[in-house]
Amino acid sequence: MEEGAASNKMIVLKDYVKGFPKESDMLLKTSPIKLRVPDGCDGAILVKNLYLSCDPYMRTRMRKMEESYVDSFVPASPITGYGVCKVVDSTDTKFKNGELIWGMTGWEEYSLIKSTQGLFKIHHTDVPLSYYTGILGMPGTTAYFGFYEVCSPKKGDTVFISAASGAVGQLVGQFAKLFGCYVVGSAGTKEKVDLLKNKFGFDEAFNYKEEPDLNATLKRYFPDGIDIYFENVGGNMLDAVLLNMKLKGRIAVCGMISQYNLEEPEGVKNLFCLVTKRIRMEGFIVFDYYHLYPKYLEMVLPLIKQGKIAYVEDIAEGLESAPNALIGLFSGRNVGKQVVVVAHE
Amino acid sequence: MEEGAASNKMIVLKDYVKGFPKESDMLLKTSPIKLRVPDGCDGAILVKNLYLSCDPYMRTRMRKMEESYVDSFVPASPITGYGVCKVVDSTDTKFKNGELIWGMTGWEEYSLIKSTQGLFKIHHTDVPLSYYTGILGMPGTTAYFGFYEVCSPKKGDTVFISAASGAVGQLVGQFAKLFGCYVVGSAGTKEKVDLLKNKFGFDEAFNYKEEPDLNATLKRYFPDGIDIYFENVGGNMLDAVLLNMKLKGRIAVCGMISQYNLEEPEGVKNLFCLVTKRIRMEGFIVFDYYHLYPKYLEMVLPLIKQGKIAYVEDIAEGLESAPNALIGLFSGRNVGKQVVVVAHE
Repeated sequence: MEEGAASNKMIVLKDYVKGFPKESDMLLKTSPIKLRVPDGCDGAILVKNLYLSCDPYMRTRMRKMEESYVDSFVPASPITGYGVCKVVDSTDTKFKNGELIWGMTGWEEYSLIKSTQGLFKIHHTDVPLSYYTGILGMPGTTAYFGFYEVCSPKKGDTVFISAASGAVGQLVGQFAKLFGCYVVGSAGTKEKVDLLKNKFGFDEAFNYKEEPDLNATLKRYFPDGIDIYFENVGGNMLDAVLLNMKLKGRIAVCGMISQYNLEEPEGVKNLFCLVTKRIRMEGFIVFDYYHLYPKYLEMVLPLIKQGKIAYVEDIAEGLESAPNALIGLFSGRNVGKQVVVVAHE
Repeated sequence: MEEGAASNKMIVLKDYVKGFPKESDMLLKTSPIKLRVPDGCDGAILVKNLYLSCDPYMRTRMRKMEESYVDSFVPASPITGYGVCKVVDSTDTKFKNGELIWGMTGWEEYSLIKSTQGLFKIHHTDVPLSYYTGILGMPGTTAYFGFYEVCSPKKGDTVFISAASGAVGQLVGQFAKLFGCYVVGSAGTKEKVDLLKNKFGFDEAFNYKEEPDLNATLKRYFPDGIDIYFENVGGNMLDAVLLNMKLKGRIAVCGMISQYNLEEPEGVKNLFCLVTKRIRMEGFIVFDYYHLYPKYLEMVLPLIKQGKIAYVEDIAEGLESAPNALIGLFSGRNVGKQVVVVAHE
């Protein structure tokens, strides 16, 4: 290999995916790469990828979409997603070699990032770097602004969170507790339910897979109804929640993971509750709040350092493990934020 | 008959209704009534009913409901609803004989109203009295505050209204036009579509029954998408609208008339659009805005008198015609606001 050249392992999406994604929908490939930004390519950086983030929204990108808030993956090209990276070469004056960043990168060992807009520099390294794929990155920002800006919380509000042990849910619940709310979460295993109650300090939690009648379950945990629902799953859970919302309740729609692998989404039948209970249901995307990221970081870093907020990651070692880690999200196999380590430094 | 006594015709709901309501679900009965408030019944009024309002929400009251924003009708008792009435006797110092009011009354010639809270006095009689069942009553207030308070309109916004020639829809469209929006309405007959375009001044209108692909229809009328959807129908129309909303669009959920006669509502499948387009979908009920009614009246009366707002009623003569008039709402037979005249004065 010539000087400054390396071999670059990458995870490629073979083709658009129907139904439940499988490991075999993705392929490990190796290509040579020069570890510098090509001549004439200004304003770009070449990075070494350290940590990659597995996020539910990535399922939507495995499908051909005409228009959406994110682009479809490009078949036969590396999957892209959030990650933590180290700058190896730069033709962008804003970034220097050796600096750490987080933002959109490729599922490969090294990535050439041609547009550096939307990347965030990492200034605080006295916390695990992987946190910048979660509590200090996109999911954390999502949880914080979704809760504060979309849910319009009041002290004492009753809050329900689905997929509550996931990257976003675990944080929403803790922010809500710190704010003075009563917080209940749902998850899909006993282990996760234990985490919610014992590690994240939720008031209550239940395993939705063991509840034959979600409407009755929610009535048990919320005899007076739900003020705020932080929606991560969609489908039947949403229908049951609608029946249990309080007057003037708020539903922040963050995601609908139960629907992503269906060719046709389940129909939601209880929307008339929006009228009878004057409910506000609002979708949001973290992009709209990234300009407030510095404010978020300033708030959350001390909470982490003082141990006032807990954060659980599920770490897969090696780029080779990334396809399996990603599809595990959709069966709920991960416990906490799913991260893939490509390199530790 | 003794002095001060009369016979009182009334429309009674036989029993709770499943599926599409029929005339035979209701019954005309006659009982004697004394035309004065009974002894010992303070704070009550006895009224002569002049105009009765047929409104879609009344369908929900024909069903046994555990808890809702309105009570179920009481089988074997007169149907209740909004109406315009004249006070015949009063033990409430706020109301005098001969005064005109609008509010909740019975579907009968005379009603004893034991709680006068929620009744509005009519001070302006230089407009048709029947207007107080519509543009000057509940539907007008619904249209105005639904549009201004829930839709957050901006000049130039694109607005879509379903059931647009109905009591509420025709007004929302005109308020939106006066505000400077581009307005399209849907209705179920050619006659109604003509009204929307030629009488109410909508920019465009279409007959949804003649459109096999509502998604394509909406794309034709809103090539750049919909900013505001004023939802009156639910079901398939809502699904098609979700696909055509703009980023940061608003959906004010006023009603879902297409669903009221179904034992199980249709499922709405495109709710993930709430996330991808950051849509706010909010239900509302006019009750929450009645304290602003005087402000509304002050605004709308001059518009009516100056001919700046048009208003179409579909008037059925006689209490006997009320059951047929009410069920006509659900097949869309009425053209404009459905009113029943019980007595002209």
